[in-house]
Amino acid sequence: MPEVKINGVDIFYKITGDGDRVLVILNGIMMSAESWGGLLPSFTKAGYRVLNVDFRDQGKSQSSPVTYTISQHVEDLKGLLEHLGIAKCNLMGISYGGQVSMLFALTYPHMLETLILANTMARLTQYLIAIGESWDEAAKLKDGKKFFRLAMPLIYSDTFYEKNWKWLKDREELFSKILTAEWFERYLRLSSSHGDYDIVQHLTGIEVPTLVIASDKDIITPYHELLLIHEGIKDSKFIIIPEAGHASCYEKMEEFILIVLGFLAIND
Amino acid sequence: MPEVKINGVDIFYKITGDGDRVLVILNGIMMSAESWGGLLPSFTKAGYRVLNVDFRDQGKSQSSPVTYTISQHVEDLKGLLEHLGIAKCNLMGISYGGQVSMLFALTYPHMLETLILANTMARLTQYLIAIGESWDEAAKLKDGKKFFRLAMPLIYSDTFYEKNWKWLKDREELFSKILTAEWFERYLRLSSSHGDYDIVQHLTGIEVPTLVIASDKDIITPYHELLLIHEGIKDSKFIIIPEAGHASCYEKMEEFILIVLGFLAIND
Amino acid sequence: MPEVKINGVDIFYKITGDGDRVLVILNGIMMSAESWGGLLPSFTKAGYRVLNVDFRDQGKSQSSPVTYTISQHVEDLKGLLEHLGIAKCNLMGISYGGQVSMLFALTYPHMLETLILANTMARLTQYLIAIGESWDEAAKLKDGKKFFRLAMPLIYSDTFYEKNWKWLKDREELFSKILTAEWFERYLRLSSSHGDYDIVQHLTGIEVPTLVIASDKDIITPYHELLLIHEGIKDSKFIIIPEAGHASCYEKMEEFILIVLGFLAIND
Amino acid sequence: MPEVKINGVDIFYKITGDGDRVLVILNGIMMSAESWGGLLPSFTKAGYRVLNVDFRDQGKSQSSPVTYTISQHVEDLKGLLEHLGIAKCNLMGISYGGQVSMLFALTYPHMLETLILANTMARLTQYLIAIGESWDEAAKLKDGKKFFRLAMPLIYSDTFYEKNWKWLKDREELFSKILTAEWFERYLRLSSSHGDYDIVQHLTGIEVPTLVIASDKDIITPYHELLLIHEGIKDSKFIIIPEAGHASCYEKMEEFILIVLGFLAIND
Repeated sequence: MPEVKINGVDIFYKITGDGDRVLVILNGIMMSAESWGGLLPSFTKAGYRVLNVDFRDQGKSQSSPVTYTISQHVEDLKGLLEHLGIAKCNLMGISYGGQVSMLFALTYPHMLETLILANTMARLTQYLIAIGESWDEAAKLKDGKKFFRLAMPLIYSDTFYEKNWKWLKDREELFSKILTAEWFERYLRLSSSHGDYDIVQHLTGIEVPTLVIASDKDIITPYHELLLIHEGIKDSKFIIIPEAGHASCYEKMEEFILIVLGFLAIND
Repeated sequence: MPEVKINGVDIFYKITGDGDRVLVILNGIMMSAESWGGLLPSFTKAGYRVLNVDFRDQGKSQSSPVTYTISQHVEDLKGLLEHLGIAKCNLMGISYGGQVSMLFALTYPHMLETLILANTMARLTQYLIAIGESWDEAAKLKDGKKFFRLAMPLIYSDTFYEKNWKWLKDREELFSKILTAEWFERYLRLSSSHGDYDIVQHLTGIEVPTLVIASDKDIITPYHELLLIHEGIKDSKFIIIPEAGHASCYEKMEEFILIVLGFLAIND
Repeated sequence: MPEVKINGVDIFYKITGDGDRVLVILNGIMMSAESWGGLLPSFTKAGYRVLNVDFRDQGKSQSSPVTYTISQHVEDLKGLLEHLGIAKCNLMGISYGGQVSMLFALTYPHMLETLILANTMARLTQYLIAIGESWDEAAKLKDGKKFFRLAMPLIYSDTFYEKNWKWLKDREELFSKILTAEWFERYLRLSSSHGDYDIVQHLTGIEVPTLVIASDKDIITPYHELLLIHEGIKDSKFIIIPEAGHASCYEKMEEFILIVLGFLAIND
Repeated sequence: MPEVKINGVDIFYKITGDGDRVLVILNGIMMSAESWGGLLPSFTKAGYRVLNVDFRDQGKSQSSPVTYTISQHVEDLKGLLEHLGIAKCNLMGISYGGQVSMLFALTYPHMLETLILANTMARLTQYLIAIGESWDEAAKLKDGKKFFRLAMPLIYSDTFYEKNWKWLKDREELFSKILTAEWFERYLRLSSSHGDYDIVQHLTGIEVPTLVIASDKDIITPYHELLLIHEGIKDSKFIIIPEAGHASCYEKMEEFILIVLGFLAIND
């Protein structure tokens, strides 16, 4: 489990596969480099070397010694890519990771071959601020089970609840075991990093081939927020995963994989 | 502020207006007889005598001395109507109140002239059970402000948050002041009254003229749950309030009022 | 069957009921003053005097001796209202009639108490131009049955076709009998009257209380075109009729009536 | 331009690429083997040998000497695959071609590796029958330009009309040149081949890995018809192409390609 000190913080990363082409994956705010086990084999089989990374304050990476805004992760990632000698990559970000990915694309466009954005947003709406406050209240309880119960109905779709109750209840147990007080403190710092994030006007500056994935039942980042991104980024393709909520990469894993692989294929 | 002992519990009610025709309003689970101030003048002006009522464990009604299921409210309402000498009424129920209303229509159809169902459901889906668990966790904190922050993003639409941030923040303050420990205990009993509520197969038994109101952004009781009710009740009209969430009677009060008044008018 | 010469053309109109308040109804392009039989009793019972009118080149009104644009109907209507001594009215327009109604509201706002707009548009999109071309080709065949078959799949929803096949086939027969060569010539002149209709920027000038009705399956004037109108007219209420296409006043007649009556009631 | 006599009819086909894996493409009713020029390079580059084929009465294939139902194409295709020595293939069908593909999957499942179904239906609804009648009336005029104007508004989305007016007008010209009287006679025979097509109950018999593609603005085969197919075929993936109508493979060609390539990749 390699890690490297970037901008004064130990950043954990994981490389899987040995293809020439690199796929970097940036996590949603509650995820980590370990969250992608189900998807990795498909990407590596397709010839990609996958780089998973934990943001500072996330997963196995070190806590941030300083306060920061979301742009800090752009610098951390750039440092990591340079350390690894990766000059160009395909960058995929989910939700919070998608926000970081768009900022990266605006700052270091020459390091990207393609950009993949799933269930993410280009601005903080009042509704997203309210969801952030809701999850912050939940996090402050520092209880994994309560956090799961309080936060998940916004994340998974009603369709998914209907068909995967046991899986969700198992996951609730898992959360209650692995979410420590420290996890919640780190989560709260990540959550407070958004600042007044709004890059809608800058989207036209993203010129790298881009894939935008929405889910039809995503409450947090609904269709029209993804459409806004698609309309802003000229060279973007737009796809909807039906019968899925915000966690499309879990709810409809195979659909998610096939869309990503197809997009990578046409840009190969 | 009249109240009367029904089935051993003091039930609070309020009568406004003096028309011949009676409109009975059953509250959503977090509401009370006092929640309808903005809508009453339109109903009384249209010639209706409005009966607002607090369920046992709600508003100013007494706490229930016994455990009960949601059907108990049907008996309480029937007792109240008999006490008041109301032989027939138009019955309107929102969300939880809509569930009670449908049960009432199945049990005492001869007491109804029409039935109005807004943002409600004929069954407990797994998703609704999860939302129930979420709100129960929030209620157990016995803190009005936290409860508001944790529960509201599922209730109000993103559109409403965008345009009414200050109103919502004022309401958050209000909740923090008026939601007492006792309120939360009573809420939790109401919340646990659902049992295994599922009346989908019985809907064809409702023969009274019925209005079904859905909102296009209702996460809790989405369009397809209301469609299910509309398809089940033969003599039902179905209308959607656009750009609104679960709290359509607040989010789009005038649209809500006009639909109800129009429905009452064609059945007059 | 009264008619009166307005701006050099005999305009047919029909008055039903004798209430103090007046409801003027403007037809869709393929309709006429005779199309509203099913809805009239509800409006008159509610106390409205209903004025139906045929545009020049429509129904029993005279053909236009001159070429004209859609604004001509505004002047014709104004003349008719003056002739009838109607100083103020509630104006309801469907589709083409809705376009005329908005132009009337911009030109003679003092003559309106309220405005009701159903399944209409504030601009000609390229798609609407293509539909216009399609129907013009169909009209040029001067065969009622062919016209019905060619034009109706865009007008009625799939849901309506599923449940009303016989009614639609009867109507196809009716069209084949009553649509004469002259009807088609007049239709083609009405159809060519749109010019470069686009009043989106002027909608903010409409200040009269307005009701906007959309249908969820309207292909011709879909939801977003009605939303545009709602967003433009400040004092407007917006309602969706579900499971209906462009012909909402036929497909869901009772829902249509109740929304209109409710809107009139809150503005009474 | 190879052709071969199958079941007494010269069937035209075209092979592009030389991969080991075969992708067979079945056309929509108004298309032909020549319609796929824009998509072929992506498929061949990805290593597929593509077999395009014209149904009897379509494109360069011979007219049918006998009347037939849609199942006849299944036998013709089977004969062609045997003639070419193709034991197994990936079968992709659009609209009418999708109907044939599902019938093929039910009859000769051992000849399929995967099945790709775009903008198609498992049953003839009353609405589809009405559209069929509409297009038959249009075809009987035997005029390419009129046919284009009359039929296309149901096929392309309003979004596509808005952005591609010139392309559509050029295509209108093309239709007026290449659609001969014979083309229309052949079209009418294809159109009459549906019989009482309804395979909804048989979908569970399709066990081959399947991709189902819907468009959000498809009027002819709307979302719920594709959902029906997805729910019927157990091992199926479901994707929506947004801002597109029935002609998704033209309207959003790159999105269409990437979804197909991704699906083929995960089943490779």
